Amino acid sequence: MMRDALTEKEAIAMEKRVRDSFDKQGLMHHLGATITRVVPGIVHIQMPYRPELTQQHGFFHAGSTSAIADSAGGYAGFTLFPEDSSVLTVEFKINLVAPARGDYLEAIGKVVRSGRTLTICQLEVFGVVGAQKTLVAMGQQTLICVPDKPDAPK
Amino acid sequence: MMRDALTEKEAIAMEKRVRDSFDKQGLMHHLGATITRVVPGIVHIQMPYRPELTQQHGFFHAGSTSAIADSAGGYAGFTLFPEDSSVLTVEFKINLVAPARGDYLEAIGKVVRSGRTLTICQLEVFGVVGAQKTLVAMGQQTLICVPDKPDAPK
Amino acid sequence: MMRDALTEKEAIAMEKRVRDSFDKQGLMHHLGATITRVVPGIVHIQMPYRPELTQQHGFFHAGSTSAIADSAGGYAGFTLFPEDSSVLTVEFKINLVAPARGDYLEAIGKVVRSGRTLTICQLEVFGVVGAQKTLVAMGQQTLICVPDKPDAPK
Amino acid sequence: MMRDALTEKEAIAMEKRVRDSFDKQGLMHHLGATITRVVPGIVHIQMPYRPELTQQHGFFHAGSTSAIADSAGGYAGFTLFPEDSSVLTVEFKINLVAPARGDYLEAIGKVVRSGRTLTICQLEVFGVVGAQKTLVAMGQQTLICVPDKPDAPK
Repeated sequence: MMRDALTEKEAIAMEKRVRDSFDKQGLMHHLGATITRVVPGIVHIQMPYRPELTQQHGFFHAGSTSAIADSAGGYAGFTLFPEDSSVLTVEFKINLVAPARGDYLEAIGKVVRSGRTLTICQLEVFGVVGAQKTLVAMGQQTLICVPDKPDAPK
Repeated sequence: MMRDALTEKEAIAMEKRVRDSFDKQGLMHHLGATITRVVPGIVHIQMPYRPELTQQHGFFHAGSTSAIADSAGGYAGFTLFPEDSSVLTVEFKINLVAPARGDYLEAIGKVVRSGRTLTICQLEVFGVVGAQKTLVAMGQQTLICVPDKPDAPK
Repeated sequence: MMRDALTEKEAIAMEKRVRDSFDKQGLMHHLGATITRVVPGIVHIQMPYRPELTQQHGFFHAGSTSAIADSAGGYAGFTLFPEDSSVLTVEFKINLVAPARGDYLEAIGKVVRSGRTLTICQLEVFGVVGAQKTLVAMGQQTLICVPDKPDAPK
Repeated sequence: MMRDALTEKEAIAMEKRVRDSFDKQGLMHHLGATITRVVPGIVHIQMPYRPELTQQHGFFHAGSTSAIADSAGGYAGFTLFPEDSSVLTVEFKINLVAPARGDYLEAIGKVVRSGRTLTICQLEVFGVVGAQKTLVAMGQQTLICVPDKPDAPK
């Protein structure tokens, strides 16, 4: 599933590639989401509660929840892609398993199978209040690696 | 699939119920989305292009696309629910079938099967440039009707 | 979505390719399923009721329903693939929307988006009693085209 | 996620309820599948390789793989349901992540969230050759609990 361990230099370059690309996602800024963990095959994203992110009952909207789940999975896959390639979401499926409430949501994307063309990720989103984390959504995502197309061209 | 035809008065009340609830979705405002069609079993939502809605290549982010698809399906189901009930998304699955570009996106939610507890919708999202519409995403969604819980309490 | 219209000769060759491959699917024989329609982008499969296909209440098992849905979609995609390529299912999602009963089930796979690498299909399964068809399942499927690998080697 | 620990007598009754219901699934017999583990919230099903279970390249057909994944998840949910209730699959999504080969397949259904009405399961299927297990499919499933309707009436 994982490629060989990265050298420290490669790990720094990989994390920079992920963060540079994330910074270009206008939606993540607009939702107030930040990337909080980047390791090979795993990415975490946090998004504090704001009324701008809600559905009609005041919980996080499924669209907000899905947006950070999708980005977490996409960048989890991207950590394992060759340099100069790009990541696109083919599809994802998400179950909203509990009301999405909390001081913030934390999405975790984790690569389960990394192929040359397609990568499969598991997606989890937790609602966090203080030290308490509750699973609010879980999903599964298919990514495609687009070779020879840098993800975040300058 | 559809319940008996509504009287004009019922149709007006139903549309008001949908629009009142939609207006309470902070995320839809934040994304600049508006509801453009409400008939029994079908709802359309439009969202003009803005850099705040994008992924790293400048297209609409899958999270933006999914958000309006989810709301369109949810409200399509809601049009067929009894008064004083509420709608929640159980899960959805979405394929991003083409780069989501356009002057605006239009999401169409359509009820395929409406049961007492569960409702299944088909979701489509089009990228619109002038008179040209391109399918950019398609999905399938499961909703649950929560009885005796008005969707948009004052 | 569709490639250019086929010549009569190409259409015959395409249908033969599909049927030869289908005949190699041990599972379809074992379930008593037959392919009843093959046109570019659309394939139908029928499966008569037998107790060997049931779940615990005597309806068709979701696994039986899914199996013919998957094959119908897979071959619908395959009709549009280049010769000497092969088809694999990447993933599918299916909603079981009504009890799967009937004299037979009919699965319809339809290509919605056909790309060079990935193809997206819509899946429908109907329970048929006499002239009455009831939608029992609907789904969405992602296929991958594997080039230079004939699907049904002799 | 789990209800309170079962007494030994309750655990025996629960396992009997699952096995009696499984024995009524004509499809599981027809595919040669057997249930190999039943504990609260988790069920395993095994299915030895036979040409009757294959797709056109001789691997297990996605329909075979999905069938045991669906049953494993359904019965995992069922272990946590009240007596005299019944289980139905609302929907599932499955990724076929590697060629499904092996002496047998083993499907594992695991409850992730168990609610009064809906239950969400994670599905995994492994291809097993000797001591080597390879993940060949992973999925996510939504079940509904139908109260006051015994699952396997005599």
